[in-house]
Amino acid sequence: MKIGILGLGLIGGSLGFDLRSQGHNVLGVSRRESTCQKAVALGSVEQASVDLSLLASAEVVFICTPIALIVPQFEQLIAYLPSTTVVTDVGSVKAPIVEAISPLWDNFIGGHPMAGRADSGIEAAQRDLFVGKPYVLTPETRTPTAAISVVEEIVRSLGANIYHCQPEQHDRAVAWISHLPVMVSSSLIAACMSETDSEVLQLAQKFASSGFRDTSRVGGGNPELGLMMARYNRQALLRSLQHYRHNLDKLIHLIEQEDWTVLEERLKSTGKARPDFVE
Amino acid sequence: MKIGILGLGLIGGSLGFDLRSQGHNVLGVSRRESTCQKAVALGSVEQASVDLSLLASAEVVFICTPIALIVPQFEQLIAYLPSTTVVTDVGSVKAPIVEAISPLWDNFIGGHPMAGRADSGIEAAQRDLFVGKPYVLTPETRTPTAAISVVEEIVRSLGANIYHCQPEQHDRAVAWISHLPVMVSSSLIAACMSETDSEVLQLAQKFASSGFRDTSRVGGGNPELGLMMARYNRQALLRSLQHYRHNLDKLIHLIEQEDWTVLEERLKSTGKARPDFVE
Repeated sequence: MKIGILGLGLIGGSLGFDLRSQGHNVLGVSRRESTCQKAVALGSVEQASVDLSLLASAEVVFICTPIALIVPQFEQLIAYLPSTTVVTDVGSVKAPIVEAISPLWDNFIGGHPMAGRADSGIEAAQRDLFVGKPYVLTPETRTPTAAISVVEEIVRSLGANIYHCQPEQHDRAVAWISHLPVMVSSSLIAACMSETDSEVLQLAQKFASSGFRDTSRVGGGNPELGLMMARYNRQALLRSLQHYRHNLDKLIHLIEQEDWTVLEERLKSTGKARPDFVE
Repeated sequence: MKIGILGLGLIGGSLGFDLRSQGHNVLGVSRRESTCQKAVALGSVEQASVDLSLLASAEVVFICTPIALIVPQFEQLIAYLPSTTVVTDVGSVKAPIVEAISPLWDNFIGGHPMAGRADSGIEAAQRDLFVGKPYVLTPETRTPTAAISVVEEIVRSLGANIYHCQPEQHDRAVAWISHLPVMVSSSLIAACMSETDSEVLQLAQKFASSGFRDTSRVGGGNPELGLMMARYNRQALLRSLQHYRHNLDKLIHLIEQEDWTVLEERLKSTGKARPDFVE
């Protein structure tokens, strides 16, 4: 099959490696000529170009650009594609993308491979990145089943675990487990920085160990990623943040009231619930 | 030197191993006869008893019981000790303990070895537990220098890094980097559990990966430890929680107002501040 990849970063580049190893003919487009050359040299794609017209002959196109560029790039790409081309994207937020592209393209299916890493760029691309990872697809009721099947078959061949859901459900779910933790964790660091007694601050910095390291990790990560989460998943993230704030307030109230019985029950219940997420 | 250890759990038992390997004569007291037998069998202490009078001949006594028992156990111990005995404790909160014991005992120095682990009990005790870890001492201006020197020398021999500070400074510092993260992390799990759309909750559970795992870890830990932090470090923890809530509110406000410039600055600044704590 002839498969196009628009955007040759970590996800697009890794996808190229896997699809080529299965014998597909993989065509890549990047905004930068240097990225095109690297992607070909590394073997991630067979041919690459800065020109969108290269993708005209692809049967399936994966849009793997940063989230802010998915819709604008698709709007430019549309001029080159026959209406039979199946298009999918890999954006980490689904509702705004599906809402923008679906009315323009019948054979579109939103997607989100949950295989992010701290590294980015074509240099970070690797084989088997998607093996054992969730890969969400958000087809609509009117999406042609043939288009769904084509994308599903490719995703399955990557070794990923396929989930189907509505774009809004996806966005709420990732708000809970990916976007909310970033804000919670960043606020922890910000609060510690607000300590005005410089001796206490220095002691805190010396004493911090694995507990602080783990809880602060995602809050100290890539600020652009955090910003994108807030911008593109604003509504679901605000919903999660309001619930979080409510739960935090309850906990503060329990400590203020010295209600140790209920506080202990609460800590027990969160300890009991965590394995449902992480095991 | 003859050294007594009151409380033979992870910390007391580990201390015993190290002190014996340096040739000290180590006496242990536990509330349970079975723990006494295990501690002797493992080699953590030379002699052990459920009777506090065993510690009468010790030159230095380490109180290593759970935090709630430190003051009551000391109050019982006092009847057996000559006034020359140097007493120290290993409680993870210092102000309430120092306030209670200092008026009763001149040769008392509060201490906190920051070498906690998830495991507990004499079975979890190990050699070299304190190597490279912070060990806080909180002597007061009126504490005899000879008593401070004795404890310092022992602590240094464990391979720990000694810090001196006031009990209140210690408690504020650990509120930031140990106790606040537990509450922040527990509230994250509690908020996720509050999702009323069961499909979204199930998706969140399936999608959760390393970011959620790390941010939720300490909130899913031992509920008794979390409760002790809140009970015994209530004031400092509430102070940290109020600062945290204020920072969280600012962040929610930025997202509501779509103030992406300031949000990005904020995420950048927390990313920049984190290495001061964890590197």
